[in-house]
Amino acid sequence: MELNELKTPSLVLDVERVRRNADRMAARVSRLGADLRPHVKTHKCVEVARLQTAGHRGGITVSTLAEARAFVAQGINDITYAVPVEPGKFDEAVEVARECERFALITDDASVPAPLGEAARSGGVTFDVFLKVDCGYHRCGVEPHLPEARAIPRLICDSPGLRFAGILTHAGHSYHARSREELLDIARHERDSMRDFAAVLRAEGLEVPVVSIGSTPTVTQVDHLEGVDEVRPGNYIFFDAFQAALGSCAFDDCALTVLAAVTHHDRTRRKIVLDAGAIALSKDRGAVEFDEACGYGRVLDLEGRDLGLRVESLSQEHGAVRVHDEKLFDSLRVGARVRVLANHSCLTAAQHSHYHVLESGRIVDRWEIHRGW
Amino acid sequence: MELNELKTPSLVLDVERVRRNADRMAARVSRLGADLRPHVKTHKCVEVARLQTAGHRGGITVSTLAEARAFVAQGINDITYAVPVEPGKFDEAVEVARECERFALITDDASVPAPLGEAARSGGVTFDVFLKVDCGYHRCGVEPHLPEARAIPRLICDSPGLRFAGILTHAGHSYHARSREELLDIARHERDSMRDFAAVLRAEGLEVPVVSIGSTPTVTQVDHLEGVDEVRPGNYIFFDAFQAALGSCAFDDCALTVLAAVTHHDRTRRKIVLDAGAIALSKDRGAVEFDEACGYGRVLDLEGRDLGLRVESLSQEHGAVRVHDEKLFDSLRVGARVRVLANHSCLTAAQHSHYHVLESGRIVDRWEIHRGW
Repeated sequence: MELNELKTPSLVLDVERVRRNADRMAARVSRLGADLRPHVKTHKCVEVARLQTAGHRGGITVSTLAEARAFVAQGINDITYAVPVEPGKFDEAVEVARECERFALITDDASVPAPLGEAARSGGVTFDVFLKVDCGYHRCGVEPHLPEARAIPRLICDSPGLRFAGILTHAGHSYHARSREELLDIARHERDSMRDFAAVLRAEGLEVPVVSIGSTPTVTQVDHLEGVDEVRPGNYIFFDAFQAALGSCAFDDCALTVLAAVTHHDRTRRKIVLDAGAIALSKDRGAVEFDEACGYGRVLDLEGRDLGLRVESLSQEHGAVRVHDEKLFDSLRVGARVRVLANHSCLTAAQHSHYHVLESGRIVDRWEIHRGW
Repeated sequence: MELNELKTPSLVLDVERVRRNADRMAARVSRLGADLRPHVKTHKCVEVARLQTAGHRGGITVSTLAEARAFVAQGINDITYAVPVEPGKFDEAVEVARECERFALITDDASVPAPLGEAARSGGVTFDVFLKVDCGYHRCGVEPHLPEARAIPRLICDSPGLRFAGILTHAGHSYHARSREELLDIARHERDSMRDFAAVLRAEGLEVPVVSIGSTPTVTQVDHLEGVDEVRPGNYIFFDAFQAALGSCAFDDCALTVLAAVTHHDRTRRKIVLDAGAIALSKDRGAVEFDEACGYGRVLDLEGRDLGLRVESLSQEHGAVRVHDEKLFDSLRVGARVRVLANHSCLTAAQHSHYHVLESGRIVDRWEIHRGW
């Protein structure tokens, strides 16, 4: 099928760029001596995960139990659920673990190991459990200097049904770095603070099987990974306008766009409206810290060339774009089609039920997105 | 099922409030002498539409062809698709029209009527077509003083396969009104400018069957509806934190919440993290023009009482909430459950596949949400 024959709005995945992004990251992480455990929350798609894990151990990271169920059902057997688990999810986690060779959970709370171990035992499974560490993002995790950081691994070790898997962090504050230097500082701190904390635990006689770190910006920039066993970047597989603004990639690396049609052409205001609105694109404000005018996405032509236009405002099914250039404005009449490179590919993908797979300029396949919880 | 037994995050629809909102709006519009054609984009749910249209003509408004297909399949036969139609959707619109007693489209573009009429004729259907009018929102529509505003209805009338249905507007700028007075001004202008424009067209000999207006804020505030035939509010069926801040409703009228669990409990920062993140809530910034601290939603207890907390930041599966009160903080440990009243119910609902229907404190049903395009 031709790109132009798809209905709009539709999610378009440039599989050649996906493969290139997958290969580059796999080569980089391999060169740095770590395992790659990609975070599939970006795409929620089994076919994309297979491209990411080709030639590797095959382990993945998920953000929901729905992702875990979908990937297990497709034979992916080594999964880390990297959001702190809470008691309402124990039973479902047991169900996943039953279908899986290895299902790892994370916690940063001293109240969790005992009842989680009990759930595992009564369900006849064993969970690998990581201590979630806060290396400066301050979203979740326990800071290494706090007493709980040493107590919780002991609680995990002491719970039959649980295996202490190691320590895990995510330097999400890398997304707010204002310069390459600041980003590199964050990347080094993510690595070094975890290496040092693992040494503290090991000095106390604890086995720390895995030190797991990673975000796309830090893994892209970090200078070495000594002391780190695995990295869990996710966004790199698609990248997006935000990552390109941040310097993690070039705009030409971005693999995910939304095909949209012009539904309104306002000569008075030199404005067009696209049928890609808040639902099709998501309302993520993207790199607004670096670029106030970033809007909700960049407008490209069907070949992926940047038209220099931004989606400036969104309502549910409308995306408004001002077009100052007269010739360009004239070409973008009702029914004309463009592609929108969204700010944040993870949230944009999660708005859709499937990808249309673009290869050599044609739509060659349709891949399902496993949404929900 | 008890509310507490649902998994999290889950969308909870308080059906008693939905019925009350439906009844109040139906009574109000009936008292004002107009027809109610609710916009189902807010909920995308057949069962909710049936509550809204009970005792009325039964017509609805949709924002996508996916909604149109789903509602037609359930026997709802009188539908207005209220986003300007573009040529890429003509064939699918013909398919819907074949299954429907009346399928109305809207346009504001002189290039549309001829090919749309041709598609209708070759598909063996007739479309009702409204002229979309801009009454000050400046999103879509043609301003009444422009020559196209009089030319396009003629083009519609001249196209076999099309019937001129009338004029239609949406005062979306009502959402940005800063006071009740400003809102009332917008509501009156929405009504009066359409009444006056209909008179202009009628004076030229054109039959204008329907004058259609409406947004939840304007229909809630307008003092009379003389000259208006139908109104198309949508959000009123659920309301949300934004509408309550705007004064369209009380907080107790809000019918849609997201059930969430605490996944992280940070004593150092007096912060908790919920498992309702950017996907479960949407990143709509809500009433930020009125209330900079509105965040991404209000945190309620399981009975729906406001805990005085806001979701301050979101990432994909994490919603962060600061809790200054010590006793409250202590009660919100990992595994505790709350409900989040989101800023914008339309976008929040569109993130989920179904509603859990809450009645008399228990979950009594599960209703599907028809997403996609």
